[in-house]
Amino acid sequence: MKNISILGATGSIGTQTLDVIKFHKETLKLVAASAHKNWEKTIEIIDEFKPNYIVMTDELAYEKVNEYIKNNNLCINLLFGMEGLEKIASLEEVDVVLTSIVGMIGLKPTLAAIRAGKDIALANKETLVVAGELVIAEAKKHGVKILPVDSEHGAIFQCLQGKADNKIKKILLTASGGPFRGKKIEDLENVTYRDALKHPKWNMGQKISIDSATLMNKGLEVIEAHFLFDVSYEDIQVIVHPQSIIHSMIEYTDSSVIAQLGSTDMRLPIQYALNYPERKGNISEALNFWEINKLTFEKPDFDTFKCLSLAYKAGKVGGIMPTILNGANEVLVELFLKDKIKFLEIPEIIEDCMNKFYVESPLTLELILTKDKEVRDYLYSIYS
Amino acid sequence: MKNISILGATGSIGTQTLDVIKFHKETLKLVAASAHKNWEKTIEIIDEFKPNYIVMTDELAYEKVNEYIKNNNLCINLLFGMEGLEKIASLEEVDVVLTSIVGMIGLKPTLAAIRAGKDIALANKETLVVAGELVIAEAKKHGVKILPVDSEHGAIFQCLQGKADNKIKKILLTASGGPFRGKKIEDLENVTYRDALKHPKWNMGQKISIDSATLMNKGLEVIEAHFLFDVSYEDIQVIVHPQSIIHSMIEYTDSSVIAQLGSTDMRLPIQYALNYPERKGNISEALNFWEINKLTFEKPDFDTFKCLSLAYKAGKVGGIMPTILNGANEVLVELFLKDKIKFLEIPEIIEDCMNKFYVESPLTLELILTKDKEVRDYLYSIYS
Repeated sequence: MKNISILGATGSIGTQTLDVIKFHKETLKLVAASAHKNWEKTIEIIDEFKPNYIVMTDELAYEKVNEYIKNNNLCINLLFGMEGLEKIASLEEVDVVLTSIVGMIGLKPTLAAIRAGKDIALANKETLVVAGELVIAEAKKHGVKILPVDSEHGAIFQCLQGKADNKIKKILLTASGGPFRGKKIEDLENVTYRDALKHPKWNMGQKISIDSATLMNKGLEVIEAHFLFDVSYEDIQVIVHPQSIIHSMIEYTDSSVIAQLGSTDMRLPIQYALNYPERKGNISEALNFWEINKLTFEKPDFDTFKCLSLAYKAGKVGGIMPTILNGANEVLVELFLKDKIKFLEIPEIIEDCMNKFYVESPLTLELILTKDKEVRDYLYSIYS
Repeated sequence: MKNISILGATGSIGTQTLDVIKFHKETLKLVAASAHKNWEKTIEIIDEFKPNYIVMTDELAYEKVNEYIKNNNLCINLLFGMEGLEKIASLEEVDVVLTSIVGMIGLKPTLAAIRAGKDIALANKETLVVAGELVIAEAKKHGVKILPVDSEHGAIFQCLQGKADNKIKKILLTASGGPFRGKKIEDLENVTYRDALKHPKWNMGQKISIDSATLMNKGLEVIEAHFLFDVSYEDIQVIVHPQSIIHSMIEYTDSSVIAQLGSTDMRLPIQYALNYPERKGNISEALNFWEINKLTFEKPDFDTFKCLSLAYKAGKVGGIMPTILNGANEVLVELFLKDKIKFLEIPEIIEDCMNKFYVESPLTLELILTKDKEVRDYLYSIYS
């Protein structure tokens, strides 16, 4: 249980903080709250949350609340003004002080909380604006965390945290959509490998370029992500994002999304992997968001790009099925690159193979190698 | 120094990996490389990187390279085929094996590398597709890291890492642009607080709503970010992003950008701060990128929204200047809310105060409180 003290409980952030405490009532408890003039709302807070301390900073409002407490025989410590704020910011039993008071008036109680060793959930930006140096120095000295509540600074803070022990809810895998994005089945009947090799965003090898045109590349990546990050197929969502600037995203259990962005330069992920865990160098240009006009998103067209659906299916079935999908795809891409089959035959024949070759057996390296060869031999015998 | 072995060095990823190794030549060294048919490029690699081992998987290409090595009296171990691949994947002196071979042929050498305890920079997705379970189990057993090189999986992997010891290059602070985004000075002459309170994205208190209309809110956040994340003002960039879905971003020294996204619901950052470091609950709706059509970005209009420029200036001057900026702003917003001054007078009068009240002295809490009062008294005496 974390005990919370809110400085400024009746304002916009204060009210939303109360919502959060209500939502997490098994782990968060309101022990103290302050307000300025809004005594009506303060009385509601008293009734609902039964805090131990209330501070009012307006005299008239103080009287109103005092009267209510007396008339109802409540056991609440009612305090007044700056002294009261400093008191509830530094109470023994408080774990986190949320400072959502507006303006520089938040400075002194924030310092009092830090000096008492309380973590600060900081929504009072004026405090840092006027006394950033002092506040940060005090926080370091007392080993206190400043947890920013501003949405922007909260975002930055979250970006810096990494996964820790938090569960991934969903992987959002972005896809450029390939050279045939927006096309329908009837547009794709006669496309050749030469059309397919014209990838709009990434300069890649031939195999992956064709896989990118069929969306099989994304399908293989879905399976890859499943194994790398231990997330179920239902929780891996492909998002078409033609600019290829967001390279993928994670959604956590609290619905917060963390994304990685960069220019479309494969040397970046390579550099990161080779230098891991250190980030080094400046091998390609930084993004300039003042010039990036927009990022767009679409749902993939699962009917036209059937390879993507087949990959999900193979992944969900599991066992030897992804080997069949992959083996068939490797051969069919090769055949397509030799003009021996048509573009739309790729998913068609893969599906046939998936029906024809699947067996339910425990996955072993031997089974993988045997089945893969079986599929390849079969396809070469028919199509080449 | 990290010793690298590349399986598939002449393909697209392989070539880009060589670029990366060249770029980081003080810390990365190529000790082994394989290729299939491309002997010309292999010879270039030999000349430039002088690896200890080369593997060719095509017979004719093997002969060509062998001839070149003999004719030039080079001290290189030339190996052939799958056996060669497994050998260079598991060499004693290798730290990281980058697998950029295309297709299922990468499976056996990848397993060999894992069993030899080498970290894998994985660009060969087919390996995980066909044998994900086996590969991940082996990697766990041997305490080996799988570092994904696919841009998408690399992105996810980066999102999971957090800051560790990596230096932030830049903070990219997003701004909705407020209710007057796109307006020019002449459009703003007669706007009232009623116009200013209509914020397009966030439902907020009055003070912050006016600050959002002048962009002073973003200016205060710039100063806040400077103190919270220890980044210089030159490296804090404000980006107007009207949809308010990206809540802010970090750019690292390698130009990679990590962003946090979520719905425009302040309860999310509050919940995160109060439950920190655990992520809990599902207090608001998740984003649905299949429905989010687009995210847009603009450069802020520093001339029209002069408060933003003034905040940067106050931050850079430092000392007591942010206190003057903030004190003046707090009073002026209050006066604007009472119709006592005009919208465009807010930055004008703040600038006057910054010129009038600044003193160069070491910052103390006492100086802050005194100067703040001085500014406020001055403004009340004139305008109310």
